[in-house]
Amino acid sequence: MTYCVGVVLDDGMIFASDSRTNAGVDNFAAFCKMSVFEQAGERVIVLLSSGTLAGTQAVISLLKQRASAAQNSSKSTQAITGTSFSMAMSTPAEQPSLWNVKTMFDAAMLVADAMREIDRRDGKYLEKSGLEFNASFILGGQIKGEAMRLFRIYAEGNFIEAGLSTPFMQTGETKYGKPIIDRMITPKTSLADAAKCVLVSFDSTMRSNLSVGMPIDLICYKKDSLQIDMRRRFDDGDSYIATLRSEWSDGVREVFSRLPSLVW
Amino acid sequence: MTYCVGVVLDDGMIFASDSRTNAGVDNFAAFCKMSVFEQAGERVIVLLSSGTLAGTQAVISLLKQRASAAQNSSKSTQAITGTSFSMAMSTPAEQPSLWNVKTMFDAAMLVADAMREIDRRDGKYLEKSGLEFNASFILGGQIKGEAMRLFRIYAEGNFIEAGLSTPFMQTGETKYGKPIIDRMITPKTSLADAAKCVLVSFDSTMRSNLSVGMPIDLICYKKDSLQIDMRRRFDDGDSYIATLRSEWSDGVREVFSRLPSLVW
Repeated sequence: MTYCVGVVLDDGMIFASDSRTNAGVDNFAAFCKMSVFEQAGERVIVLLSSGTLAGTQAVISLLKQRASAAQNSSKSTQAITGTSFSMAMSTPAEQPSLWNVKTMFDAAMLVADAMREIDRRDGKYLEKSGLEFNASFILGGQIKGEAMRLFRIYAEGNFIEAGLSTPFMQTGETKYGKPIIDRMITPKTSLADAAKCVLVSFDSTMRSNLSVGMPIDLICYKKDSLQIDMRRRFDDGDSYIATLRSEWSDGVREVFSRLPSLVW
Repeated sequence: MTYCVGVVLDDGMIFASDSRTNAGVDNFAAFCKMSVFEQAGERVIVLLSSGTLAGTQAVISLLKQRASAAQNSSKSTQAITGTSFSMAMSTPAEQPSLWNVKTMFDAAMLVADAMREIDRRDGKYLEKSGLEFNASFILGGQIKGEAMRLFRIYAEGNFIEAGLSTPFMQTGETKYGKPIIDRMITPKTSLADAAKCVLVSFDSTMRSNLSVGMPIDLICYKKDSLQIDMRRRFDDGDSYIATLRSEWSDGVREVFSRLPSLVW
């Protein structure tokens, strides 16, 4: 399983993903599910993936390879750091890629096209084993000249965009961690509070589903900054997560103990 | 959808169920999902149902009809109140029924047999429409001479019993309301606290899933009392539920606001 959350606020965006992948309980591993396409001053695009690893990796590799080809064809410099692609300059290129699409809507279309391409390639072979192409994404960010935007792209490649009434998207094991987000997050919520809320939401999810696990990757993106200044990975035993967990647990118990009992 | 919870504690048991049934969002209604077989001083058996209404109603009707036949054959008096069957005296009878089984395990077997009987009767017709028999139950209570026991019976008729490590069972839309139960309920929890917790769990579930809805039926059973002294139906606008909801919401917000923010 997986748990990914994207939030779009008046002040910025939050992206978070867990790292556990598993094919049965005796076969699990940690893979980063967050891919970042950052071109400082020009665009920040974040992709959170859920689904079978073969499917999501294929889609992301295709997107990266095409983005890389677009960059090479425009002779600009590219720096790859972990799962982040960053570049210093704008790179106009002919082939559409995440480096040159003009809007986040076009970025979502590009991701959907890549998903459908992989499905066309792999789908019929998966079908033979009773499986299906199963990858879905949360895509969000900002391209210069446009507002921040947040999408959820389904396995079929169609997608929805977050709005004022529902400023967040979740994928994977979404239910355990949804009540706290429902209660706390509105577009007016501060970046700091939303980050805190999303981490509490991860804590609730990890308590209830073993197939969602640390490390957690988190990005807080400040509106119009067009670069990522706040990115952090929380590993097992992280002291901030431990503090959140224990203070939240103690606080909730205290609130519960103050609730009036039913009189019969 | 549905939400039902059964809890077995050192001091007693809690049973709770919502009342919403729906076949599409334009076709919903309220049906009580709690059936009680009570024979004061001798047995209290509570059945919470989830699944398609035709399936669960057929199973319960079959169980009630057989219980009634068993009673009539023993010439004792039977009083039917709503979905409660109660009788004043013990009723030994030949045909096994919920009035005469000796243990809660046998009661669970009886429910499972009724489910399989209905499945045999209806299953092949449902199959023609691409449907399947879909009824599952939480069964719990106490029969004189035995400890309190709590079972979850799957649609296939097999079942599991709650134990010290997991003293509760949920069916239906279980995820939204599970974190609070996971945090709060152990076998040592008092009946009053467990009832409160289960109601908070219903509140979280109803906030997140429209197909779970009021009224909520609640029973608190005191260990070894062998009768139900605390049973209540909470309708829309119930003042206790409203208080729980607002105090819980305010309290959780307050705890959240006190949590430390992440320092970058």
